[in-house]
Order: sequence, then C-alpha cells, then structure tokens
Amino acid sequence: MSEIKLTYFNVKALAEAIRMLLKYGGIEFADVRADRWGTEWVELKPKMPFGQLPTLEENGKVVPQSVAITRYIAKKVKLVGNNEWEDLQIDSIVDTINDFRGKFASYFYVNDESIKEALKGPVLKDVVPYYLEKFEKITKENNGHFALGRLTWADFYFVGMHEYLCDMAGKNLFEDYPNIRKVVENVYSIPAIKTWVETRPQTEF
Amino acid sequence: MSEIKLTYFNVKALAEAIRMLLKYGGIEFADVRADRWGTEWVELKPKMPFGQLPTLEENGKVVPQSVAITRYIAKKVKLVGNNEWEDLQIDSIVDTINDFRGKFASYFYVNDESIKEALKGPVLKDVVPYYLEKFEKITKENNGHFALGRLTWADFYFVGMHEYLCDMAGKNLFEDYPNIRKVVENVYSIPAIKTWVETRPQTEF
Repeated sequence: MSEIKLTYFNVKALAEAIRMLLKYGGIEFADVRADRWGTEWVELKPKMPFGQLPTLEENGKVVPQSVAITRYIAKKVKLVGNNEWEDLQIDSIVDTINDFRGKFASYFYVNDESIKEALKGPVLKDVVPYYLEKFEKITKENNGHFALGRLTWADFYFVGMHEYLCDMAGKNLFEDYPNIRKVVENVYSIPAIKTWVETRPQTEF
Repeated sequence: MSEIKLTYFNVKALAEAIRMLLKYGGIEFADVRADRWGTEWVELKPKMPFGQLPTLEENGKVVPQSVAITRYIAKKVKLVGNNEWEDLQIDSIVDTINDFRGKFASYFYVNDESIKEALKGPVLKDVVPYYLEKFEKITKENNGHFALGRLTWADFYFVGMHEYLCDMAGKNLFEDYPNIRKVVENVYSIPAIKTWVETRPQTEF
C-alpha cells in the first residue's frame, strides 16, 4: 500500500475521525495540517478538487469529502457492518449526524452578523434538543454506540467532531446526555486512541 | 427478500434515484407518496426516525437518509465500484453533488424573504458556476458519467434530483453544460428507466 496523505487544517473537526481510524488500525499516514489563515491555504485551495479540505491522497490521486474518506478508511480497519443491511444502519446515522452538523453550519459561516443571529436562534432552541434527545435514545439502546450495539465508524465520526459542534454552538451540547457522552468515553478508552489523544497536536476543537 | 417500502412525497427530488435504481434492478417495491400539505404528513412526520422523508422500510425496520438508502439499493443492483477505492470515488462525488444541493437548500427553506434573497444572491452568482464548471469537466472526462467512466449510482443520484436543483435555483442550471446533460440522457436511455420515466407519476421536480 502506498503512503496515505491526509490534508486538513490544524483542527480535529472533519478529519479527526479519519486520523483516529488510521491510528486504530495502525496504518501509517502523513498528517498534513495546512495553515488556515496563512498563504499556505491561499495557494493550496485552488489545487483541491472542490476547494475544500480534508482530502486523502493515495496512489497519487487526491480525493475530497470527509464522510466518504472516513468510510473508506473504516473498511480498511474493519469497523464497518457485517453485511449490506448493517452498513445501511451505519451510513444512515452518519448522514444524520452530518445533517446535525449542517444545522450549525447553516448560520456559523454566514458573514452578516444580524442574519447569523436570526438563523442561529431557532437552531439552538428547537433543532438541537430535537436531535440530541433522539441521539441520546439511540446511544442508550446501542450501549454507548451509534449503531449495531457495537463499535463502528459511526462512533468515530461523531467523536471526531463533537468538540467542533460545541464550538459552533458556543456551549457544551452534551452535558445532559450521558449516553452520548458514553460514545466519546468508549472511543477514547481504546488503547491506540488513548495514546493518540495524549500525543496528538492540542487544538481547541 | 421481504417487500421494500419507500416512503416520500409525490415528487422526484431525493427519492427518485432510489426508485430508478429499484426499477433498473427489477426489484418490486411499494412506492408510497405522502401528501406533503395534508393531514397525512402531519400524522406521519412524528413517526419517522428524524421527522424526515424519504425512508426505506424492510423487514419491519424504517431507515431514513436518502444517500444511505440510494447506496444500499445500488449494491443490490450492482451499480457500485469493483473495489473499495472505486467505491470511494463514487461516494466522494455523491457527497459533492449533495453539497451542491445543500447550497440551494441554504436559502430555499428560509422563511424570512429578505434573508432568503440575501443568501440566494452569492449562491447563484459564485457557488453555482464554480460547481457546474467542475461537474462539466468531470462528466466530460468520464464520458457522460460522474465516476469511473461508466454507469454507477452516482449518475442516478444526480439525475434523480436534477430537476429539484433547477426548481430551487429558479432556472435551468444545465443549459450551457452539455456533458452534465449527457449524464441525464445516458440514464434516461436505459430501457427500464425509459419505461419508468414514461409511466411514473408526472411531477414538476
């Protein structure tokens, strides 16, 4: 296998699940972190397939899209379903977690401050508790996991970006949801991940 | 195999790729179309896993998320990659097409008309041509397909919702992009799809 190069910014957010899965599987990779606010990103952005990160480079080909990359690495490290129906369960909750992220992104990246505030209000008041209550129920039913009652890449996907979600929300979202927090605890208690969390670059989200 | 029930509204949009894949594979299914504006949806919405459609029901279990369902059916009808790397190529472009959809959704479903217009402007002016030029290049390189130079479920995913994208944009988006239009022609020229397009319920998008 040729070396894998993962390019993102120096944050966890959308690439951390990929990094953690690679560490979980003991797969070597180049953990490239571009400076988001410097000339590095200005020069790199037009070279990326759709002007976005993260990207995965393997065999000389650069591929974008964090969820697609996460699924691809999950197959390598065998944290996928045992059949197509199980993979559907994982894919479905991953896309739902990604929808949840999209709710925050719908206001967070709006430049106009008054529009941003107008959009943010209903998200935090109605949408967030709606999703979190359902996530809490699902993670309870699945014993501290998001799907199949066991560890899958859906857990990694959530754990990798849970701090990013809190950052966009401007608060700790998971305080009142012990079973969602258990997903984080479960992933962080895996020895390879524990080591990674202790040694990875320290970033806010 | 127990009967598949696909529930959505009486539009193509996010479910049409799934319907077309089922028709392509000759798989029987219940094509349930809930009345979006009547009491039917008011009663159905709270019963859906995350209050959204489409959902797939199989073996008595209801699963949401259109992309996840489309991928699941694509595996059944063998319009997926031949290996994990090929599946990554398909997944990556599907998520990019879905991002493109999200750009329209970012303003289309905002209730406040002035906010809606303020958000819509930059999307139509900058974001849309950026994506369409890249899609045109990709579909040219792939001989009228979105990935792997051959028919895959990525084509179905795009074709199923291309009218929905035009509806949200308020115009024909693909007039100046012959290779993108070729994807639609290629899918619509498949005999099983041709029959389906002629006999399916007529809807605006």
